Amino acid sequence: MHDPILHLIRLLTRLPGVGERSATRIVFSLLAGERELARDLSAAILDVAEHVHLCSECCNLSQQDPCSLCADPKREQDMICVVETVPDMMAVERSKAYHGRYHILHGALAPLEGITPEKLKVRELLQRLQRTDVRELILATNPTVEGESTALYLRKLLASVPGLRITRIATGIPKGGDLEFIDRATLAQALEARREI
Amino acid sequence: MHDPILHLIRLLTRLPGVGERSATRIVFSLLAGERELARDLSAAILDVAEHVHLCSECCNLSQQDPCSLCADPKREQDMICVVETVPDMMAVERSKAYHGRYHILHGALAPLEGITPEKLKVRELLQRLQRTDVRELILATNPTVEGESTALYLRKLLASVPGLRITRIATGIPKGGDLEFIDRATLAQALEARREI
Repeated sequence: MHDPILHLIRLLTRLPGVGERSATRIVFSLLAGERELARDLSAAILDVAEHVHLCSECCNLSQQDPCSLCADPKREQDMICVVETVPDMMAVERSKAYHGRYHILHGALAPLEGITPEKLKVRELLQRLQRTDVRELILATNPTVEGESTALYLRKLLASVPGLRITRIATGIPKGGDLEFIDRATLAQALEARREI
Repeated sequence: MHDPILHLIRLLTRLPGVGERSATRIVFSLLAGERELARDLSAAILDVAEHVHLCSECCNLSQQDPCSLCADPKREQDMICVVETVPDMMAVERSKAYHGRYHILHGALAPLEGITPEKLKVRELLQRLQRTDVRELILATNPTVEGESTALYLRKLLASVPGLRITRIATGIPKGGDLEFIDRATLAQALEARREI
């Protein structure tokens, strides 16, 4: 027989970071007392599933097209910050240090896992650079193996775009960090990228 | 403006064990690629919210009333195992060592947090004992401060029920456990409750 509780537990375990134990806890907390949160949650999940789509400009997830960032005339139009994911974009936004546009790749290159350039929003970036005048492209993929190779790949691919400056976000000791606890690779990079003060 | 993504993230953080970071991960995983899982999840949550209720016999969560356990004629009718929660009941079921009925209290006594007997399904247990002939009541609340005081409270409350044997599950060294790593209280309890072999 169909058991709605077991069915929901099974679906929840397909979410990232949710095991059977936490799925069970979630289901029984939804069933304890008032059912308001469960109804709101059901509606909110359907809402994002039905109404949130990719922005045709920057591939951000949004209910409008273009998304609110691309539609904002106050954002610099000739700068694009390329990030791997929407949460990465939100992190750059929180820094309040950037006022241009974004392009979300929705991943980073990992050929062994089948993530080739065709799986990322690379074609969309190329098309965008063809129809828009862009002065600078900041490669803000993560400083991981995948993120670095994605940055390298894009730099080579876009090297021939006329008048386009391609930059990479700096890696180094994080603010508030302690040299004692920083990994060797980061420290080596921070020394190499030292600047006059 | 209403942002469906932020709204869903906020709702998810109200679930147990889900912080903002994991809520964000969940939402973007739901939005990656096919929206099938999101639609199924939304429907499944609504399904439990609308159709899962308390069994009027044992207070189990079920879409039928009585629940499938209470409706099963093969389960011993004159034994009731009292547990704190539905997952606790599921754990006892997995042991395959018990073939009677259950009673789910939906919590344990914690007067400082406002969880008094009235907040638990104690009245339902009393009414059940009045209308049904029960031979043995196994108190299987957890061996924690709250669970022990709940067991003690129920033992006193039900002491006068004629012909009712009240038992408590054993505490001791778990199977496969190592004395070296067992806490002192458990070890003391295991020594005290030693049996002839």
